[in-house]
Amino acid sequence: MIKVGIFGGSGYTGQELLRLLVGHPGAQVVAATSRRFAGVPLADVYPVFAGRSDLVYTDITVEEMASRADVVFLALPHGVSMEAVPQFLAAGKKVIDLSADFRIRDQASYEAWYGRHTAAGTIREAVYGLPELYRDRIRSARLVANPGCYPTSIILGLAPALKAHWVETHSVIADSKSGVSGAGREPQIDSLYCEVDGGFKAYKVGRHRHTPEIEQELGALAEGEMRISFTPHLLPLKRGILSTIYATLTRDATGEDATALYREFYRDEPFVRVRPAGQFPNLSSVVGSNYCDIGVTVDRRTNRLIVVAVIDNLIKGASGQAIQNMNLMCGLKEETGLPRIALFP
Amino acid sequence: MIKVGIFGGSGYTGQELLRLLVGHPGAQVVAATSRRFAGVPLADVYPVFAGRSDLVYTDITVEEMASRADVVFLALPHGVSMEAVPQFLAAGKKVIDLSADFRIRDQASYEAWYGRHTAAGTIREAVYGLPELYRDRIRSARLVANPGCYPTSIILGLAPALKAHWVETHSVIADSKSGVSGAGREPQIDSLYCEVDGGFKAYKVGRHRHTPEIEQELGALAEGEMRISFTPHLLPLKRGILSTIYATLTRDATGEDATALYREFYRDEPFVRVRPAGQFPNLSSVVGSNYCDIGVTVDRRTNRLIVVAVIDNLIKGASGQAIQNMNLMCGLKEETGLPRIALFP
Amino acid sequence: MIKVGIFGGSGYTGQELLRLLVGHPGAQVVAATSRRFAGVPLADVYPVFAGRSDLVYTDITVEEMASRADVVFLALPHGVSMEAVPQFLAAGKKVIDLSADFRIRDQASYEAWYGRHTAAGTIREAVYGLPELYRDRIRSARLVANPGCYPTSIILGLAPALKAHWVETHSVIADSKSGVSGAGREPQIDSLYCEVDGGFKAYKVGRHRHTPEIEQELGALAEGEMRISFTPHLLPLKRGILSTIYATLTRDATGEDATALYREFYRDEPFVRVRPAGQFPNLSSVVGSNYCDIGVTVDRRTNRLIVVAVIDNLIKGASGQAIQNMNLMCGLKEETGLPRIALFP
Amino acid sequence: MIKVGIFGGSGYTGQELLRLLVGHPGAQVVAATSRRFAGVPLADVYPVFAGRSDLVYTDITVEEMASRADVVFLALPHGVSMEAVPQFLAAGKKVIDLSADFRIRDQASYEAWYGRHTAAGTIREAVYGLPELYRDRIRSARLVANPGCYPTSIILGLAPALKAHWVETHSVIADSKSGVSGAGREPQIDSLYCEVDGGFKAYKVGRHRHTPEIEQELGALAEGEMRISFTPHLLPLKRGILSTIYATLTRDATGEDATALYREFYRDEPFVRVRPAGQFPNLSSVVGSNYCDIGVTVDRRTNRLIVVAVIDNLIKGASGQAIQNMNLMCGLKEETGLPRIALFP
Repeated sequence: MIKVGIFGGSGYTGQELLRLLVGHPGAQVVAATSRRFAGVPLADVYPVFAGRSDLVYTDITVEEMASRADVVFLALPHGVSMEAVPQFLAAGKKVIDLSADFRIRDQASYEAWYGRHTAAGTIREAVYGLPELYRDRIRSARLVANPGCYPTSIILGLAPALKAHWVETHSVIADSKSGVSGAGREPQIDSLYCEVDGGFKAYKVGRHRHTPEIEQELGALAEGEMRISFTPHLLPLKRGILSTIYATLTRDATGEDATALYREFYRDEPFVRVRPAGQFPNLSSVVGSNYCDIGVTVDRRTNRLIVVAVIDNLIKGASGQAIQNMNLMCGLKEETGLPRIALFP
Repeated sequence: MIKVGIFGGSGYTGQELLRLLVGHPGAQVVAATSRRFAGVPLADVYPVFAGRSDLVYTDITVEEMASRADVVFLALPHGVSMEAVPQFLAAGKKVIDLSADFRIRDQASYEAWYGRHTAAGTIREAVYGLPELYRDRIRSARLVANPGCYPTSIILGLAPALKAHWVETHSVIADSKSGVSGAGREPQIDSLYCEVDGGFKAYKVGRHRHTPEIEQELGALAEGEMRISFTPHLLPLKRGILSTIYATLTRDATGEDATALYREFYRDEPFVRVRPAGQFPNLSSVVGSNYCDIGVTVDRRTNRLIVVAVIDNLIKGASGQAIQNMNLMCGLKEETGLPRIALFP
Repeated sequence: MIKVGIFGGSGYTGQELLRLLVGHPGAQVVAATSRRFAGVPLADVYPVFAGRSDLVYTDITVEEMASRADVVFLALPHGVSMEAVPQFLAAGKKVIDLSADFRIRDQASYEAWYGRHTAAGTIREAVYGLPELYRDRIRSARLVANPGCYPTSIILGLAPALKAHWVETHSVIADSKSGVSGAGREPQIDSLYCEVDGGFKAYKVGRHRHTPEIEQELGALAEGEMRISFTPHLLPLKRGILSTIYATLTRDATGEDATALYREFYRDEPFVRVRPAGQFPNLSSVVGSNYCDIGVTVDRRTNRLIVVAVIDNLIKGASGQAIQNMNLMCGLKEETGLPRIALFP
Repeated sequence: MIKVGIFGGSGYTGQELLRLLVGHPGAQVVAATSRRFAGVPLADVYPVFAGRSDLVYTDITVEEMASRADVVFLALPHGVSMEAVPQFLAAGKKVIDLSADFRIRDQASYEAWYGRHTAAGTIREAVYGLPELYRDRIRSARLVANPGCYPTSIILGLAPALKAHWVETHSVIADSKSGVSGAGREPQIDSLYCEVDGGFKAYKVGRHRHTPEIEQELGALAEGEMRISFTPHLLPLKRGILSTIYATLTRDATGEDATALYREFYRDEPFVRVRPAGQFPNLSSVVGSNYCDIGVTVDRRTNRLIVVAVIDNLIKGASGQAIQNMNLMCGLKEETGLPRIALFP
């Protein structure tokens, strides 16, 4: 039984980690921290846990957490994670960091988008936690930088095409749409029901912080520098990201060709499904599961590859992927404890 | 491994049975019928099953189904179930009928609300499948009449008070609100997104067919005839029923007293949770789970007991309860394969 | 042209007043105050006003407002209104107060539910601003206490039956459901999209502050003391209140009889519509309009009158009714500037 | 008073025409046809009209309609309009056709996307009813082909940039998202509440019938042939379209430059608002109004112009624009009877 600790467990991401871990047959949650809710039972903060977990939020230190847990998940804001991660590593713990702090390998790039990095020496320790691309390295990692939600959908959506050099690297546009849970549980006007329901908007157009992370990973796949246009939008729904991705083809290909390429690439993946040619996934087919569903076509009139990729932002886009990484790091079967059929309707 | 067949498997209730059974460790679905989708893979009708089930809808006869399955679930319209049930029983199968056909023990009452009953001789075979009230009888039943969604919420919401004779039997009002999935997947104007979203309405006021079922079971608890007012409403959400129930007290009691009574009554129940005194459940705390959550208080100004009970109408209100019954009928642990933490947010 | 000032204009109620007044042919908004947004253009806080209004929120004093406006709307929290109202009256202004401060005629009752009243001497000046009951007194009022949203739906829903002494006064139960805009625009966890969407709950069961206001007005209609059970619920939608009201009949009557009684009572009302017997209103039929729609039936099995009344909580339940009152106080046609066809779908 | 007839008045578009016309000071609806609801009062089909309109749906012939009305709106499926339009023109009526039948000037192109055109001789009579581009021609038109909903948002979103030759014509990608009312009121599984709520999907990727209409109009603006990628998506909301449009710049420009270009282009337009540089419109700012709101920026990293344009698909995208055209054709002030402040929240 893996002893798991969660640092920053009271937001939606932390709650989702707890939900998945409570039902995980190989893990046991030994502590979950929250400053705001220290001393409050989990079931009072999230009544879904009533009768299922006696956990009480705590406010223990890094040291104390390190003394109890074997694996630590950090669900903290960026800039805060970087303080705790080196301590956990020094204590010999396995760490899965859900913040952005260790995702960007180039320190200057990180600092251009996020601000100063105070643990730059630890960045090179981190493995980018996308199992579909880095499974072997994750297995032996001490520190996994868990991917961002938007990046997960876009990188999985383009990996087969980029790896095969099918698309022009400077032609990529990612038009992404996310549910509101991505904004977290902090009270703010923009996240109020009355502001969101019946509305839809683009935000941070051309300047969202996930951009360097996406470009880093797409560049690695393409073996060259990438510059993409990335536009996030806010959907009036709770969970899920759908990314519509456009790229100009470098070759003649049909939608069937592209689908075949993708199906081959993801043939053995437990959590990626490629739709039949001409079909596109609905967000609702993955909400509640750890799947990424992908549909691919070719717009022959304009010679563009068009990809639609969907994930549950809290599961494959955050906490589910984190547990997928934990499973790999701890030698468990990769699928352990991860939901595989969406809740529909 | 129990061999399970589903008759009428393409509506939301059938889909939910399949979703739960695909993940059930002790059951194997051997066939699911659908006239409309005969020959079509389940994963084409409901893409959530892609990669998880190779099942193809079929249109086999009762005889053929009886030759393959040990336990048969019927998710058919009322009036249709009554034709098939006696045949399955004659073939020695265990049957769980999700229609209303065998819930009403008094044939005249059934016919007054639903129309002619053509298998009246079989009614007395049926056990009303509410495990919290009839667990032992369900264990040995050959035919379980699975409760309606509204009745489940109202009967569980009033059982402790009625059993203890705390409330006047003719004072009961049940104001219930249901999500849209209760209306099924048949295309109709009233179920369109544009008609439902942002709207809310009462319907079939004082004349909903669940009334005799509710009164039958409440009367059994109260050991007397019951006449209630029951008003169903349609909520702009997909899953869930919340019933607010009012009844005049026959005695002096506080909300704490009532809560204690309820907690004692449901002490050992795996799927009923009573909220602390003064707290009321949110629908979202049970959606995706088999729980019924209940909050109780006393309005001292008017001497009324007020109960709020919530369930997921497709799970505890239909398919989850059906599987709970199957577990009991087949000697499995009652909780097997049933989800216990809601998907939130 | 009536010169109108709004005190507390940046919440949803204030915004709705502004929306209606900008389109009102007989009124001109001279100032709207907001501490938070002083100096900020209305169109920056609410982009719907871009190109339609150059108004800038201000933070002027009561004196300054009194020097500019002829009629003042107060959209302030209870307890704050009571400080400003006497000053506006002393300055000879007409005042429409949307808070609860002057709705309760009995000071002790006000203080039991809301806390100390510091302007008790002014209470008797106030006319309860429900035009359907107090039209003539509103015409000559200097101070109108604009009704609460829940009370508007419940009082209009019961007035004909109580006035005709058709129902037992101690049998009344009001089960009300409101959209989220009723909770205002203050950021709080309970109003977040992720907490509300897909959920539904009762709150403040038996202890909501609108209770004494409802009982006062129902008592006046019934010519006797009233004690009701009132349960508010939170709907996953933005606008609208639906109240389902139950009362035991004192006489033999059918749904047709009750409908006839209601149609006669509201025959000349411009903003109340009674549905044909057996039909019940959907919230979506009034959202965006100043209407109250009502459906009535009799549950003959239990001898109860059941009434369903719907309003848009921000219009007939607040700002629209306030303008209806302004029209009456200023000698304009009552319907002036008030929307009469809901936005559907 | 203009005598107005509506052919095909029972869908959402017809209903919206009726809603706007009932409140229009210069028009009077003399007849609205519906095969399905012939003989049924409008207020029974859409209760929002109760007390506001005594209209009864009828099933009169083209001849009969022509004898009653001066202006006829056709809200019929494509392929059906083309039969009636020539008859109305022959009878000397002004016609506003909301179908696609007369939007495409090139018959071959129409037939490639829609099927055979049986009134090709009438196509050249039609003026494309986008007042912002063709105001003068609309004023004198006998037949206006009212634009499609997606095209309206995309053409208005790109017109200033194309007209100024700021963007490469073959670089345009339009990623559009529409509410469900665009699918009409016909019952179908894909439009059910349970299928839509909480979901989001792309559909008809690269093959939506609005493509040739968009390319025709963009081509006219750019004075050259256009080939675009157009991807429609289905949003979980009732009303509104948001189009995110990408195009590579042919020159060096900032977001401020682009905003200035757009503001100048739309300076005198009553129904187009350009947001300040760096700001993007929310759908909820136009829902219920006839506005098109536009935000523009330049992604300097990739040298792309990014435009976000929003409309209410039933108003500016259909019925509101139709009435704007009627106003122009009949010599009324263009804004007459058109709503200008969105219903928010």
